[in-house]
Amino acid sequence: MTDGTTPTGAGSPPRPSTALLTDHYELTMLQAALRSGAAHRRCVFEAFSRRLPDGRRYGVVGGTGRVLDALTDFRFDEGVVEELRRKRVIDDATCDWLASYRFTGDVRGYAEGECYFPGSPVLVVESSFAEGVVLETLVLSILNHDTAIASAASRMTAAAGDRPCIEMGSRRTHEEAAVAAARAAYVAGFRATSNLQAGRRYDVPTTGTAAHAFTLLHDDERSAFAAQVEALGVGTTLLVDTYDVPTGVRTAVEVAGPGLGAVRIDSGDLLQQAHAVRAQLDELGATDTRIIVTSDLDEYAIASLAAAPVDGYGVGTQLVTGSGAPTASMVYKLVARAGDDGVLVPVEKRSSGKASVGGDKWALRRLTDGVAVAEVVGVGRPPADDGDDRPLMVELVRDGQVLAPQDAATARARHAASRAELPPVALRLQRGEPAIPTEYVTA
Amino acid sequence: MTDGTTPTGAGSPPRPSTALLTDHYELTMLQAALRSGAAHRRCVFEAFSRRLPDGRRYGVVGGTGRVLDALTDFRFDEGVVEELRRKRVIDDATCDWLASYRFTGDVRGYAEGECYFPGSPVLVVESSFAEGVVLETLVLSILNHDTAIASAASRMTAAAGDRPCIEMGSRRTHEEAAVAAARAAYVAGFRATSNLQAGRRYDVPTTGTAAHAFTLLHDDERSAFAAQVEALGVGTTLLVDTYDVPTGVRTAVEVAGPGLGAVRIDSGDLLQQAHAVRAQLDELGATDTRIIVTSDLDEYAIASLAAAPVDGYGVGTQLVTGSGAPTASMVYKLVARAGDDGVLVPVEKRSSGKASVGGDKWALRRLTDGVAVAEVVGVGRPPADDGDDRPLMVELVRDGQVLAPQDAATARARHAASRAELPPVALRLQRGEPAIPTEYVTA
Repeated sequence: MTDGTTPTGAGSPPRPSTALLTDHYELTMLQAALRSGAAHRRCVFEAFSRRLPDGRRYGVVGGTGRVLDALTDFRFDEGVVEELRRKRVIDDATCDWLASYRFTGDVRGYAEGECYFPGSPVLVVESSFAEGVVLETLVLSILNHDTAIASAASRMTAAAGDRPCIEMGSRRTHEEAAVAAARAAYVAGFRATSNLQAGRRYDVPTTGTAAHAFTLLHDDERSAFAAQVEALGVGTTLLVDTYDVPTGVRTAVEVAGPGLGAVRIDSGDLLQQAHAVRAQLDELGATDTRIIVTSDLDEYAIASLAAAPVDGYGVGTQLVTGSGAPTASMVYKLVARAGDDGVLVPVEKRSSGKASVGGDKWALRRLTDGVAVAEVVGVGRPPADDGDDRPLMVELVRDGQVLAPQDAATARARHAASRAELPPVALRLQRGEPAIPTEYVTA
Repeated sequence: MTDGTTPTGAGSPPRPSTALLTDHYELTMLQAALRSGAAHRRCVFEAFSRRLPDGRRYGVVGGTGRVLDALTDFRFDEGVVEELRRKRVIDDATCDWLASYRFTGDVRGYAEGECYFPGSPVLVVESSFAEGVVLETLVLSILNHDTAIASAASRMTAAAGDRPCIEMGSRRTHEEAAVAAARAAYVAGFRATSNLQAGRRYDVPTTGTAAHAFTLLHDDERSAFAAQVEALGVGTTLLVDTYDVPTGVRTAVEVAGPGLGAVRIDSGDLLQQAHAVRAQLDELGATDTRIIVTSDLDEYAIASLAAAPVDGYGVGTQLVTGSGAPTASMVYKLVARAGDDGVLVPVEKRSSGKASVGGDKWALRRLTDGVAVAEVVGVGRPPADDGDDRPLMVELVRDGQVLAPQDAATARARHAASRAELPPVALRLQRGEPAIPTEYVTA
């Protein structure tokens, strides 16, 4: 293969190599470390965040499954190596080393969908420096993006309660980020997505009916509604705000009958309109016709509609931009490395404002009567379990082999359980401290 | 091809099909319009924004080149169509129509790198409804992401003046968004990126040296610096803030000599440290050693360092998250369509707060003595050129064939010229009105 793709199983598409989704300096560090001999020192790298996004009470680990997929596709094939050689990014010895790169180390970490807190050791990579350092950029890209989306999404689904949230933000983010965002939202409890690729790649349910353009295409609203109902059935959702909402609602029920599935409102004062549209639908006999709202919603807007007769929320921009926190602040730090004697020693940066806790880590969630009370992080060894605690670290990769793929549906169930375990303060939307404290236990 | 990839020229990698990077509702609308017959009506879709990101003075069109690439790869291959059929996303007739999908319409728009304003008709697609509607999601994903990044990046390079800005935010955004962000930053004047894939795919210069992990890997800072200098030469950049900055600087010069290329500071009070480090370097005779700063910079921080002895800025998080505006607010609206008589008529949505101006549009930038004074948008026909004006619409695609690919280097030069033409108020970082007004001229 010279084209940056990795063959996969029979019938599967070739997947592009993920190896160049990497910062230049990972490879220059590799070159210097190969030269000094330190590249082969055993190392522990840790992905964690020093803080939650501004005022949030908990975060949601997103992307672990995608990290494991990307690890499998992390190969420097011939074309990539030739490119690095030609551009003199790195020297020949480093190119030769990369050409045979395979990750042979171990990875443990939080299962996808798990809640996390400041200092939670979300992903721990143990390998030679050389094998682990080149993964930094890709691991962080995935975790930071998917975690930001999952963390915002979880607040939205919590605010929505039993009402479904539908992810429809693809157009507001990079086209591939959109696919990952749909997956992350699903993990955090969204019911479905508009994104077809997320349906194909991750089995996220997809949904959608029509936009304003469809109404404008036709000679009038009535003929547009009639065309849609004929093609998609009376169970469809008609978008009633292209011209005038009361007229749109009346026309919709006239065309589809009182069995119309739903109407969608995408503009204006949603609170006021939801009540007015509900009254109008009921008056028209369309008592089972649902009301879906979709205009610039975030978790606060969803919460403010809790008492309104709304049956579902479509969320776009604010979901895919993390509702004010478009990236998590995960870092990937060297926390321990072997010296020439082979013994692992903790290491840590000491710069002002960015200090970290050295040492390899394990974690558990301390529970009292089934309610989380602390994130307990053991440095150097697993913390003691007091009986009711829930260990948080899962063995994900051993000797380079993925042991525990993290599919979206499993992660979704896990997130629901993990969130349910948090104290009630966790679900407050107001800014504040993390819902539980992080406690370090040193060996 | 059954695997979602499109073959390209000899020696090129197969590129994944972009067709499923699409909202479900584009296809259900297509189904309903095929059924009603309206799918074949000639339509004009327009991508534009009603406003600039909060208080910005101008925006920068990013992503046009990527849109044209994606259009070429927009094919519903056999595997994709089977998936849509199996999941009953759409009916058989619609599946059959998609299987032979080729865009055969026209596209005109602003060249990439051009500045834009509220209402600028950034991209205009003219085709049948069917061919144009299915492009909506992908066109907007690309334009909204790349434009957000380019718009933020331009403010940073303007604030930096002659000092280079280096894009290093890959780890803070989705791994593929990172590649596009590096490209968009380059268009807006960044000198280089850390992202290797952006180097490969778009010929953006890449750069990088070492992280704190490299220092921590070695037994002490001195041996780490020695290893780096041996591998990368004295022209390298040494990261001096792993432990104590003054010690780091002294050790760096001792190891590399006064010919050391640069030192990098990644934490603490950058303003104070830049002065202190400059004084120390000068005292050590390293008068040509540059100082690169890289900690959580945005355009405001860059501007605040204008008088400090800083030689370059590495920008990460704030660049890839659009410095507070992670997405542009571009929409893709049906603005005109033919009736049964084949005559194009303007159409527009009238919902509260989201009204748009119907009709197909052209635009020019009105200049007085070479300085922009207005964005003139002609509705229904090109506005009259008063002699000094600069037409803004470029014919990008004719009959489905890309006429004017938009490469990053050309877009970069165009952006520099376009920004230079704006009045001085455009470069103010403070919130305010757009630098020039948008004036509509109706036929």
